[in-house]
Amino acid sequence: MVARTITLADGAGGERMHELVRKHVLARFSEVRPVEIGLNRLDDAAIVDGVAFTTDSYTVRPLFFPGGDIGSLAVAGTINDLAVMGAEPLAVSCAMIVEEGFSLEDFDRVLASMAETSRKAGVPIVTGDLKVVERGAAQQLFINTSGIGRRTRRLDHNFAVARRHRQVRDLWLTDGNLAAGDALIVTGTVGDHGIALISFREGYGFETSVQSDAAPLHTMMAKALEVGGLVAAKDLTRGGLANALNEWSEKSAVGLRVRESAIPLSQGVVSACEMLGLDPLEIGNEGKALLGVVPAMAEKVLSALQATPEGAKAAIIGEATDEVRGVVLETVVGGSRPLLPPSGDPIPRIC
Amino acid sequence: MVARTITLADGAGGERMHELVRKHVLARFSEVRPVEIGLNRLDDAAIVDGVAFTTDSYTVRPLFFPGGDIGSLAVAGTINDLAVMGAEPLAVSCAMIVEEGFSLEDFDRVLASMAETSRKAGVPIVTGDLKVVERGAAQQLFINTSGIGRRTRRLDHNFAVARRHRQVRDLWLTDGNLAAGDALIVTGTVGDHGIALISFREGYGFETSVQSDAAPLHTMMAKALEVGGLVAAKDLTRGGLANALNEWSEKSAVGLRVRESAIPLSQGVVSACEMLGLDPLEIGNEGKALLGVVPAMAEKVLSALQATPEGAKAAIIGEATDEVRGVVLETVVGGSRPLLPPSGDPIPRIC
Repeated sequence: MVARTITLADGAGGERMHELVRKHVLARFSEVRPVEIGLNRLDDAAIVDGVAFTTDSYTVRPLFFPGGDIGSLAVAGTINDLAVMGAEPLAVSCAMIVEEGFSLEDFDRVLASMAETSRKAGVPIVTGDLKVVERGAAQQLFINTSGIGRRTRRLDHNFAVARRHRQVRDLWLTDGNLAAGDALIVTGTVGDHGIALISFREGYGFETSVQSDAAPLHTMMAKALEVGGLVAAKDLTRGGLANALNEWSEKSAVGLRVRESAIPLSQGVVSACEMLGLDPLEIGNEGKALLGVVPAMAEKVLSALQATPEGAKAAIIGEATDEVRGVVLETVVGGSRPLLPPSGDPIPRIC
Repeated sequence: MVARTITLADGAGGERMHELVRKHVLARFSEVRPVEIGLNRLDDAAIVDGVAFTTDSYTVRPLFFPGGDIGSLAVAGTINDLAVMGAEPLAVSCAMIVEEGFSLEDFDRVLASMAETSRKAGVPIVTGDLKVVERGAAQQLFINTSGIGRRTRRLDHNFAVARRHRQVRDLWLTDGNLAAGDALIVTGTVGDHGIALISFREGYGFETSVQSDAAPLHTMMAKALEVGGLVAAKDLTRGGLANALNEWSEKSAVGLRVRESAIPLSQGVVSACEMLGLDPLEIGNEGKALLGVVPAMAEKVLSALQATPEGAKAAIIGEATDEVRGVVLETVVGGSRPLLPPSGDPIPRIC
């Protein structure tokens, strides 16, 4: 008998990772004391004593890519995990694991990029850690950013609006909050980050002008919350839109119907996906979110999103419904098919 | 000209790391908005909107060692960074970077150990992340734990007691809070964690019974705060007691006089240090803290510490004074010498 080992697929953000996490992590990390939203919810952030709290480690390669680098990605990614819970990001941490021999110039470039992203976002980096390991014990540089955020009056207003229309389970933008009728909004084109990375890596023999979409989304989210009526939000990282939709359908116990033709896609992503045989709906993004909005507010939220730079290409792509089970994609050619969660990640090491 | 690269010494927790951090990190990460205690303070945790927030990545090897493993170390270490600020630890995160091919059995052992440490400490693990990288891109397993904590009435009481005796700069247990006259207390024997690790690694050709001291200190800290009069606390990780004392002297701009004979040391650590030519005061610990206490309360705080399992061997080792500059060690043989900060870490990868 060969002992089971951890494989790349176990960490790819798809079904296999969820199974590993449920069976090996959640089974052990049962809540030690009740918290508002804990690990068992597997949401974008936890809520403890009213504080939103999230963590992500970044192992992206290459470290520098069109539209960003590991530093901007790490700061934006953690801000986004707070923002899509409805929290106002307060502060981010920065813990670096550096391989001995890593160039000080590249180290400086990454730090400058983190600093710029933090400054532009108005979210300070307040605490950190540095570990250096022997050559070969890590690959260049890994960064962990964790973050904390708080509840705002804006979020209270958002839920006050939503509750004029129906009951809401959690008063944060959780995966379990959807109900039949809710509109599904994607805040822009999907697949850009993953395609920018894979096209930039060596050996793929093609070039595109696709840039990573890595960007903090908290300002855009604030504008949407000011309109009100959001019940759920999720950033479309590993596993892409296909994964996010399936998580929502499962956690909210509601069907989702999505119109393929309504999903925003850039021409570069479409071309690259055709060439590589990839599904853009399974590809990770770092500056896009999926929103669930009570139907009466959907158009107003959409307009507010479209008025922001990050949400200019936002679109309503479908709705929650009791008429289907799981996620059903109405295809461009007129039929419909189940949109299954990706089993692994088609492009490894994108974040 | 050869481009400068990051070296192991840059991450060793000593003077060289402090220089790198000051020059390359702090220079860039100037605070984006004012926070109570921010990165520029380089303290054990930041304080933002009344929330204590800290992060640490663990790259210890081997993963399993006498008295603990990377999992128990990570949970205890982050709890301690919160506890030594005077905060009550509320929650911890867990972000893992796993090398492809890592044994699922060892993965499970680490998770079980984290869960047990969390449960015993009463501090839940509420959010997490998992990344798997290709074989050779990381060494087995790295863990980042970040943590959040809050202010308690106990901490307010502690400072009310301290302020009966003198002015206090920060109302958290910061490195900059010491003043001449304050007593220095070490909460137990020093050097155990580093010696347990090095003696367990292959090729050193000796064995000891020294166990890692890795343990959460928040319960012990709570008992000390209930007495009151603490102004500063610091856990004695990388760089050990020598580093902590020098940081305090510099940040509080006060001299420190330490009696070598008063520093608690286990016989195993003394023997191992003699054999290896190491200074136990420079060796990292994972379950010991240095406390600064207003003089009138020192004996009472000491008694309270000694009544706890973690603090049973606590001792007053010296005091802050304007009569010396920097840190001066009164040696066992009767002389005195400057105790300098370690330039690097005598034992790499201990946390």
